[in-house]
Amino acid sequence: MNNFIFYSPTEFVFGKGTEMRTAEMVAKFHGTKVMIVYGGGSAVKSGLLDRIKELLDKAHIAHVELGGVQPNPTDPKVYEGIELGRAANVDFLLPVGGGSVIDTAKAIACGIPYEGDFWDFFTGKSVPEKALRLGVVLTIPAAGSEGSGNTVITRTDGLRKLSLRTPELLRPAFAIMNPELTFTLPAWQTACGITDMMAHIMERYFSNTEDVDVPDRMCEGTLKGIITEALRVMKEPYNYGARANIMWAGTIAHNGTCGVGCEEDWASHFLEHEISAIYDVSHGAGLAVIFPAWLTYMAEHNVKKVAQFAKRVWDVPESDDKRAMALEGVARMKSFLHEIGMPTTFKELGIEHPDIDLLVQKLHENKGELVGNYVRLDRNATREIYEIANR
Amino acid sequence: MNNFIFYSPTEFVFGKGTEMRTAEMVAKFHGTKVMIVYGGGSAVKSGLLDRIKELLDKAHIAHVELGGVQPNPTDPKVYEGIELGRAANVDFLLPVGGGSVIDTAKAIACGIPYEGDFWDFFTGKSVPEKALRLGVVLTIPAAGSEGSGNTVITRTDGLRKLSLRTPELLRPAFAIMNPELTFTLPAWQTACGITDMMAHIMERYFSNTEDVDVPDRMCEGTLKGIITEALRVMKEPYNYGARANIMWAGTIAHNGTCGVGCEEDWASHFLEHEISAIYDVSHGAGLAVIFPAWLTYMAEHNVKKVAQFAKRVWDVPESDDKRAMALEGVARMKSFLHEIGMPTTFKELGIEHPDIDLLVQKLHENKGELVGNYVRLDRNATREIYEIANR
Repeated sequence: MNNFIFYSPTEFVFGKGTEMRTAEMVAKFHGTKVMIVYGGGSAVKSGLLDRIKELLDKAHIAHVELGGVQPNPTDPKVYEGIELGRAANVDFLLPVGGGSVIDTAKAIACGIPYEGDFWDFFTGKSVPEKALRLGVVLTIPAAGSEGSGNTVITRTDGLRKLSLRTPELLRPAFAIMNPELTFTLPAWQTACGITDMMAHIMERYFSNTEDVDVPDRMCEGTLKGIITEALRVMKEPYNYGARANIMWAGTIAHNGTCGVGCEEDWASHFLEHEISAIYDVSHGAGLAVIFPAWLTYMAEHNVKKVAQFAKRVWDVPESDDKRAMALEGVARMKSFLHEIGMPTTFKELGIEHPDIDLLVQKLHENKGELVGNYVRLDRNATREIYEIANR
Repeated sequence: MNNFIFYSPTEFVFGKGTEMRTAEMVAKFHGTKVMIVYGGGSAVKSGLLDRIKELLDKAHIAHVELGGVQPNPTDPKVYEGIELGRAANVDFLLPVGGGSVIDTAKAIACGIPYEGDFWDFFTGKSVPEKALRLGVVLTIPAAGSEGSGNTVITRTDGLRKLSLRTPELLRPAFAIMNPELTFTLPAWQTACGITDMMAHIMERYFSNTEDVDVPDRMCEGTLKGIITEALRVMKEPYNYGARANIMWAGTIAHNGTCGVGCEEDWASHFLEHEISAIYDVSHGAGLAVIFPAWLTYMAEHNVKKVAQFAKRVWDVPESDDKRAMALEGVARMKSFLHEIGMPTTFKELGIEHPDIDLLVQKLHENKGELVGNYVRLDRNATREIYEIANR
């Protein structure tokens, strides 16, 4: 096991009706002038936004609004938020939504007190030293951004999708999580979220680090729980218990609980980011295509942990032929992904002729010549994985 | 799944050599005058205490010392610490040790700023409103106090062992966890710690709450990891990987990660507290006696979760006879406990003739007429469990 720091200071307030505690939580963490950040229609149509504004009004907490955040959030909305926040003298960010909304709010939170261009933080040109605090009302379980210190933003000019990781600054002070708010999530978005959270666990799980049985068992257990509950939630979208399990799993998958002490991989995320940046598909759906391809590649190049994954998560019987075990695991995972309505090839994702040359080129331009850790992937390897995904 | 709050703001600094960061962490959390709290010989003999004092000196952080904390810590040491802390104007508590040392430091931390008797907090006569901050250097993985907001103190006068739970005030700001510091832990203490952390998970796991598959799977996974690593660590006490897994599991077991959204039980802990209060045995060893007896009782009175536990944690094959599954699980658990050197009966614990009348009387005097939640236990039920443990 490697040395690690586990630090998840976010206060997660989970359960029915918890959004009614929003103003109380903002006040607890000293917010006095709030910017509410949200996406498109659902937070407005459901009345959630009005409910929250009313709560803030009652608590005499001033607020401004920034709506219209899109999936795969881009830099113009961040610039707009920084400008608005400075003009209105905002001291607290309150994203109401899923990962795109939260990530936008995080970029704004560190952009407001910074004199230069916030994009400097994403290119590594500068490191954020200050950020406004933020608290989250989560409506889409997927990205895990409510419990992480990360944010991912796409630069419209040049289609660079880059991430920033500053756990000490950008972890939300609180996250309000009412599973009832996810009842009306469309099936597609629900399944994309499920795939994303599974991928977050798998990026941590697939490592060569020795002596990580307790972290491994926790990853495997969470994955098994997600699989059971995913099948239930797709059939019964109004099942509170299934929604609650999925919602909490999404947080656990990304707040650092899973995979402590392991060298993490993240190649699949990088492979996917290029797909969603270029083709503007859902991140989760992109992962459903890339992860099985990555696993198939790994069955040939570093089978050990893939065989363990097949056995413990997908109940593949133990056998001497680890490669066969691994591939059976991948087959069962694909079948599960199909069952929840996810694509597992470019074609199923709606990309008939992916520009693999461009994907490989952008990937290594953005992330360097070698990506991932479980196996270090060069241009030939990433090309092969994209090609497996295109079969 | 029930509504819950997950809030684990402690910064866990885990791995080799991490105790060298003690002064840095104290400074990060604004400690300027520290009381180092420790137990008996090992922290002194190993040179750990000297190393820490030297680090504090180098960082110009003043310190006083309170040594001699005993297992099953008692109130006189707390009074001594409160007096010392007030006289020295201490602003930060630094327990170096295991659960007893940390729990003593926590009681001192809320006792110093309180005008009345600190014991008021344990009897419920008063609620702590302030506490000094504390940071931990952990040397015994067991109690999980490094990541919890709880403390358990025994009143010498009357042998009342009571606990105080104030997550917001008493969770350590940081916990430094170097598994190397546990290499020299005697086998008995190692095994007691393992039993204690397993019990912390089981107290949360055994609930009637529906729709908790993700929390269940995480509990089961952590338990399976502990079982594997426990057998390894008993054979190879200097195995870093095994020690690391056990150490982290002890934290996970009690910082709130396991069993979110479940109605917890805690009857076994209450049943045990009377044993260790009266007979001054190790808490972990007492749990090794009580938990199998509690499970045996539950096989007859609420078999459902015990059968699931038998299947998923102890690999008992599925069968229609849930009672038989449950009892086979208990048998496997007892055999595991014996393998790591734990007793599973009063006699093996060294108590030939337990005063069951007294145990039952004290238990219900201290905890009320009904204890536990998985099955509410009255005096007849707790007597029966003590009697099963005496077979």
